[in-house]
Amino acid sequence: MTEYSLFTSESVSEGHPDKIADQISDAILDAILAEDPRARVACETMVKTGVAIISGEISTNAWVDLEGIVRGVINDIGYTSSDVGFDGATCSVINIIGKQSPEINQGVDRDNLEDQGAGDQGLMFGYASDETDVLMPAPITYAHRLVERQAKVRRDGTLKWLRPDAKSQVTLRYGEDGRPEAIDAVVLSTQHNPEITLSDLREAVIEEIIKPVLPAEWLSDHTKYFINPTGKFVIGGPVGDCGLTGRKIIVDSYGGMARHGGGAFSGKDPSKVDRSAAYAGRWVAKNIVAAGLASRCEIQVSYAIGEAQPTSISLNTFGTETVPHDKIVAAVREVFDLRPFAIIRDLDLLHPIYRPTASYGHFGRQPYQLNRGTAFSWERTDRAEALKAALR
Amino acid sequence: MTEYSLFTSESVSEGHPDKIADQISDAILDAILAEDPRARVACETMVKTGVAIISGEISTNAWVDLEGIVRGVINDIGYTSSDVGFDGATCSVINIIGKQSPEINQGVDRDNLEDQGAGDQGLMFGYASDETDVLMPAPITYAHRLVERQAKVRRDGTLKWLRPDAKSQVTLRYGEDGRPEAIDAVVLSTQHNPEITLSDLREAVIEEIIKPVLPAEWLSDHTKYFINPTGKFVIGGPVGDCGLTGRKIIVDSYGGMARHGGGAFSGKDPSKVDRSAAYAGRWVAKNIVAAGLASRCEIQVSYAIGEAQPTSISLNTFGTETVPHDKIVAAVREVFDLRPFAIIRDLDLLHPIYRPTASYGHFGRQPYQLNRGTAFSWERTDRAEALKAALR
Ligand SMILES: C[S@@+](CC[C@H](N)C(=O)[O-])C[C@H]1O[C@@H](n2cnc3c(N)ncnc32)[C@H](O)[C@@H]1O
Ligand SMILES: C[S@@+](CC[C@H](N)C(=O)[O-])C[C@H]1O[C@@H](n2cnc3c(N)ncnc32)[C@H](O)[C@@H]1O
Repeated sequence: MTEYSLFTSESVSEGHPDKIADQISDAILDAILAEDPRARVACETMVKTGVAIISGEISTNAWVDLEGIVRGVINDIGYTSSDVGFDGATCSVINIIGKQSPEINQGVDRDNLEDQGAGDQGLMFGYASDETDVLMPAPITYAHRLVERQAKVRRDGTLKWLRPDAKSQVTLRYGEDGRPEAIDAVVLSTQHNPEITLSDLREAVIEEIIKPVLPAEWLSDHTKYFINPTGKFVIGGPVGDCGLTGRKIIVDSYGGMARHGGGAFSGKDPSKVDRSAAYAGRWVAKNIVAAGLASRCEIQVSYAIGEAQPTSISLNTFGTETVPHDKIVAAVREVFDLRPFAIIRDLDLLHPIYRPTASYGHFGRQPYQLNRGTAFSWERTDRAEALKAALR
Repeated sequence: MTEYSLFTSESVSEGHPDKIADQISDAILDAILAEDPRARVACETMVKTGVAIISGEISTNAWVDLEGIVRGVINDIGYTSSDVGFDGATCSVINIIGKQSPEINQGVDRDNLEDQGAGDQGLMFGYASDETDVLMPAPITYAHRLVERQAKVRRDGTLKWLRPDAKSQVTLRYGEDGRPEAIDAVVLSTQHNPEITLSDLREAVIEEIIKPVLPAEWLSDHTKYFINPTGKFVIGGPVGDCGLTGRKIIVDSYGGMARHGGGAFSGKDPSKVDRSAAYAGRWVAKNIVAAGLASRCEIQVSYAIGEAQPTSISLNTFGTETVPHDKIVAAVREVFDLRPFAIIRDLDLLHPIYRPTASYGHFGRQPYQLNRGTAFSWERTDRAEALKAALR
């Protein structure tokens, strides 16, 4: 549901350079959190031809094999040979990580744990809409599913000539009622072995990736397909494009349908509100929609560094609310505690749960590799009843 | 004008680590474009304690002194001594830049120059609103002015104990009529010399930075001030925080008030639609508001790599339009040519104009250091009359 009659969102596969960087940063975070839940981690990665550079600020007592983690992530993605352009076993791994500034730390740590200050200032948005069953905007949902499917048919051998790097983009047409109606354009670029011809590649991408994923009723003769429009995409990964942590923040969230505060997720422990408060924002917005208080909801929160209470909490329901606006805000304040300590406690964030978040979106899905036997805690609609009760 | 009753935006100074990276990337872009307007540049920078790493993909015939440019930018910002944590003269400069993939290039270059393909897929938004005289949202406008003022009083010696790294955040309260009414909260953190006491710092920041910038009628006893809330901020710049190009995309654009497609600006030559089409989007939206067709306007465009024509153009006027919506879209299509070639021509983008864009926002202002004697071309309202004529 949107005011736009056409809306476009994109996604990228786990082999995209920016996503390699995100996965490395989150794998390092996970390894440290597994040993030391009180660690402070802000891990930034750069990948370029033949090299992965890890940087940022980390304070921990844990000892982790950083080099091994970096090589493992690169190999797991499928970059295992210089033939495909990148090789986890032989690339260079450079570590220029420093410690968290003690002056930042003094703003965050408090004698009373509940008073833990926000790890930085900033603004974050959470969003939900009833236009899909996962309460996410449809364009980003289908863009993700296309690149997930690319990885699946690459891994299971259906299309043996696929390589890890890929991008997708979906332009959706919305009807007068604000509901998705048709797909206007699909863009899909995938890295490939040199042997496959462009026409074979295009046919296989349509049959094995696009058709199994996109709802048939949305496709028609008017749908435009752009499949590997450059004609050739053998060179990919970090050779074709430098990758950096935090450079796919719109792919990571709502595909542009919701506003964004600018903060990145990967590599950050949940004392950083850029991550924890954005997860909480999704949780709040999804519970509001699940409770039927609005069919579309965006929440903004903001923080000052070192302060526990948000500096602002603000709501937008785009005219879809079923209950007066200020009452919803009051119910949110009653049902949700948005101090960093409370978010971390209520969403159970001090665990090594982050690597699966780093590809195919942080919201609106069940990760493939379920950690700790649970789905993403911020996708639970466990406070919908409490919201309704607060409004009674 | 917004649906939110409270809205928060932030900005950062030119000494913030992510902004150091953006300015280095754009200074390199400028140096190359000055010699070779046909160059292809995608320059990414990482700064951390004692080191600046430049990376990305560049294809050019120009020879430029990359090391000298990097050192120059760092020194110009004010990082000139290890006493302040970073020194342009003595830090390490590491260059791992590669060439643009010839397979990407074959999608972009065309025999007929006008058919130049988009340098990547992607979605971009442009925005304008009549809530300030620069047709920008008020929260980001004032957040920028606070950190611009921090740099000014640091440079002119008014507050000699200021250091380059700083962040600001403004929470604005909107009235029933959707107009800015009051400032609810201001956050300002600035790096400083160790000599100044916290209370002296707070008083000086209020008197010399906050009061000269924020409209007095919006400040009251209800305004909350958070000035250096961690208590100490002597360590700053790349020692306190790793900096990366493209990690302040919301600061660079509309402070979160408008949607964002996710693409970064700095370091990218205008064949990359992430930059050129976002600039064009601002130009289109601003002309629509200037022509009185809406008081608030957001435009989305999207591209497929290698294709000249956008895959979608879409408009949102939030119910503020004075002319039916589809007529505005038709007028936009008539008056604006959004192929990459045409954007570059009409906004005159193949010049070394980018370094000043890399701090204090790409939109809604006249840069201090005017290059080529002109303001940002995408801020011109030179097509407002043509839009009106197209609607007659
Ligand atoms: C087009 S590249 C970015 C531009 C690049 N920095 C340059 O030098 O122009 C962005 C992404 O597109 C994809 N890509 C790389 N090579 C491609 C090709 N030959 N055709 C289509 N997409 C490609 C990869 O996913 C890559 O990360
Ligand atoms: C808080 S740091 C980011 C967090 C960091 N990566 C960490 O290790 O926790 C983000 C920005 O805050 C500012 N900053 C750094 N030190 C600070 C301090 N002691 N107090 C307030 N702000 C600070 C700088 O502008 C810095 O780039």
